[in-house]
Amino acid sequence: VNTTIDTLPTPCLILDQAKFQHNVTKMRTRIAQRGGTLRLHVKTNKSIDATRRIIADGAPERIMVSTLEEARYFAAHGLRDITYGVGIVDQKLEETARLIGTGVDLKLVLDSAHMARRLGQRGRELGVTFKAYVEIDTDGHRAGLQPQDAQLIEIGRILAGDRGSQLAGVITHAGGSYECRSIPQIRAMAEQERSRLVVAAEHLRAAGIACPQTSLGSTPTATFGESLAGITEVRAGVYVFQDLVMAGLEVCRIEDIALSVLATVIGHQTTRNWLITDGGWMALSRDRGTAQQAVDQGYGVVCDVDGRAYGDLVVTSANQEHGIVADRHGGAIDFERFPIGTQVRVLPNHACATAAQHDRYHVVEGRQVKAVWPRINHW
Amino acid sequence: VNTTIDTLPTPCLILDQAKFQHNVTKMRTRIAQRGGTLRLHVKTNKSIDATRRIIADGAPERIMVSTLEEARYFAAHGLRDITYGVGIVDQKLEETARLIGTGVDLKLVLDSAHMARRLGQRGRELGVTFKAYVEIDTDGHRAGLQPQDAQLIEIGRILAGDRGSQLAGVITHAGGSYECRSIPQIRAMAEQERSRLVVAAEHLRAAGIACPQTSLGSTPTATFGESLAGITEVRAGVYVFQDLVMAGLEVCRIEDIALSVLATVIGHQTTRNWLITDGGWMALSRDRGTAQQAVDQGYGVVCDVDGRAYGDLVVTSANQEHGIVADRHGGAIDFERFPIGTQVRVLPNHACATAAQHDRYHVVEGRQVKAVWPRINHW
Repeated sequence: VNTTIDTLPTPCLILDQAKFQHNVTKMRTRIAQRGGTLRLHVKTNKSIDATRRIIADGAPERIMVSTLEEARYFAAHGLRDITYGVGIVDQKLEETARLIGTGVDLKLVLDSAHMARRLGQRGRELGVTFKAYVEIDTDGHRAGLQPQDAQLIEIGRILAGDRGSQLAGVITHAGGSYECRSIPQIRAMAEQERSRLVVAAEHLRAAGIACPQTSLGSTPTATFGESLAGITEVRAGVYVFQDLVMAGLEVCRIEDIALSVLATVIGHQTTRNWLITDGGWMALSRDRGTAQQAVDQGYGVVCDVDGRAYGDLVVTSANQEHGIVADRHGGAIDFERFPIGTQVRVLPNHACATAAQHDRYHVVEGRQVKAVWPRINHW
Repeated sequence: VNTTIDTLPTPCLILDQAKFQHNVTKMRTRIAQRGGTLRLHVKTNKSIDATRRIIADGAPERIMVSTLEEARYFAAHGLRDITYGVGIVDQKLEETARLIGTGVDLKLVLDSAHMARRLGQRGRELGVTFKAYVEIDTDGHRAGLQPQDAQLIEIGRILAGDRGSQLAGVITHAGGSYECRSIPQIRAMAEQERSRLVVAAEHLRAAGIACPQTSLGSTPTATFGESLAGITEVRAGVYVFQDLVMAGLEVCRIEDIALSVLATVIGHQTTRNWLITDGGWMALSRDRGTAQQAVDQGYGVVCDVDGRAYGDLVVTSANQEHGIVADRHGGAIDFERFPIGTQVRVLPNHACATAAQHDRYHVVEGRQVKAVWPRINHW
C-alpha cells in the first residue's frame, strides 16, 4: 500500500493509526492502574491486524467474541483463549466442541439450569469438557441471573458435577452504562457492576462451589470504574476506536475517535442548505445512539479530509447511499468551501455498528494510507 | 442443499420462496396494468440468483444499482442495461468508463453543470460517451433540481453539446412516499412524482433539448400510482421482499413479507417477561423505520419458525448479538411455549437494511431449505 486518501473510492472506512494507538495505550494504562487484567472484546474490530497491534501494545492474548465466526477466525490466527459471550444453545455445541478439539480454550456463557444440564450431557457425548460462565444481571439491561438467585447455586452444582462441563466463573456486562448521564453515574454503575458480580461469586462460594473467574466490563465502566476488588478480568472493545456515543459519555474526546467514514460531496441543495454526499446509512449504519444523549449527533459529525470536525456540520439524515449534511442549528452552508468532489470524513455514533458495514479498514497517517486491514462480518 | 431450517446456525437470513414469487408477480402485473415498464432496483436483493428469478418472471433485463460494486457484479453476470443511481463524481469516472468499455450500457446521474462539464471532458479523455440523467427533486427529500430550474436547461445543453457526454433523460425518486400516512397520500405523491418529472422533461424539450427517458419510482408510488403518462420506466426494489415499513404503508400485508431473520431463544428473563434471542441489531440492522408510523414494530415482528406472526411479540430492544423479545403491550410471556433453543423468525423493518447485514439468503419452502443464494455487500 502506497497511496493517499484522495485516491480511495468512497464511501470507505478510515482508521487513524495514531488515534487508535492512543486509545489502546490509554485503556491498557488505565486497567493497569486499577490493578486489573484486560480481555479485549474483538466484536468491535473483527480484524486480526488491529487485534495484533493491541496485543503488541501489551494487552493479554485473551479475547471475547460475539459470534462463532469471530471465534473461528481469531483461533485460525493463533488466538486460543476465547470467551464466546452470547448465551449458548444446543445448536451451537457441536461447533464449539470442534473448536475446543482444535486446541481452543473456549469458554461459554449461560444462565439456565436447562443449558447447564445440556452442556454436561453434550460434553460427554462429544468428548469434551465445556467450560461455562454463569451470566449475572447487574444492571437490568439484558440477560443473566440476579446475583443471589437460587438458580445460580443450582447451575453451579450442575456444571461442577458433570465431567462434560465445568464452571468457569461468573460474568456480567453493565451495558446500562451507555445510558448514564455523567461520569459520577458511570462510576457508580461500575461499582454496581463489580459489587453485584462479587456478590454472585461469593454466593456460589458460600455454597461450596469454586468460582475461579469474575469477568466484567464495558468501555465506560472500564474507563471510570475505580475498585476492581474481587475481579479477575475487565472486558472492553469499543475503546480501541471510540465513537460519538463514548464522546457523549465523556469517555473520550471527539478528537480521540479513530474511526471515520470517508465520503464525497456529490451535490448541493443550495435552497435547503444541504450538502449531499455518497455516505448514506449503508456506510454509516442506522445507529442513532446519540439521539438519547445531551447532544444528538444525527448520523455523525462531519470532519474535513484530515479528520478535523467542522464544528456544527452533521449528517442530519441518510438514505441508503446518500447522506444529507447540514448545520445542526440550520445555519447557512458556504457551498464554495465544499465543491462537488470534496472529501469529508464522518465520525460514527457507534463504532461497532459502523465498522460492521465495511469489509476493511484503510489505516492512515495524515493523508497517507499505510495499510489496508481486512475485517470479518456475519456469522 | 437438502436440509431443514432447524439445522441452520442462527442468526441467519431466510427468504420465503412463495412470498417472494408472489410479490414479484404482483408488482410486474401492477406495472403492466399501468402500462409501464419496470427497471428493477437491485440494491435491495444484491443477488444474481434473486434477480434472475425476477427476470424469469417477466421483468425486463434492466436494472438500477446503488453502488459500483453492484454494477460490476451484475455486469459480470451478464446484465448490461444498468443505471447507477448515486450522483456521479470525478473519482468514479475512470471506473464507470472501464465498465462502459466492457460493453455495459451504463447510465449515470447528476444534478450540476459542474459535473455535466466534467462528464464531457473526461468522456473525451477516456474515449467513451457518458450517458447521464439529470436528477429532479419531486418531493424535497434529497438531491435533484426543481423541475423548472434554469440550470436544467444549462445542464441539458452541456451534456447534449459534448461528444464525451449524452443526455439520457430525467430521473426522480419520491422517497418522501415512505413518510405518507395513507394510500390516498401515496397516490397523490405518485402523481406529484410523475407530473413534476414530466414538467422537467417538457422544460428541456421546450428549449429544444431531446429528453428521451423519464424514469421514476419507489415501491409505494409504483404500487399505488395511477397515470404513467409521459413516463418511460418505473423503478422499484423493496417490493420483491416487502417489509414492515411497507406493511405500515399498506403497500403489502405483514403475511406478504418474504424476508426474515431466523434467531434462537437463548434465555428467559421471567421477571421482566423477556425472551432473549441471538438475533441482535447486527442481524436485524439498526433500522427503526416503523418508529414514525402508526404502529411501531420495534426491531421487528416475531413469528414462529414457519413464519406466522405471534401477534403481539416484537423485538423491543437489541444489543449487538442479543434481541429482547416482549409483548408490545407489556403482557406476560408464556415461557413454556418458548423453551431455550426455540427458533423464531423476525420480520424486518426495512428489507434493504436487514438483508445488508447478511451475505446469503436461505431460500425456504415451508421448513425445507431449497437453495442458498449468496449476496454482495460493500462498495
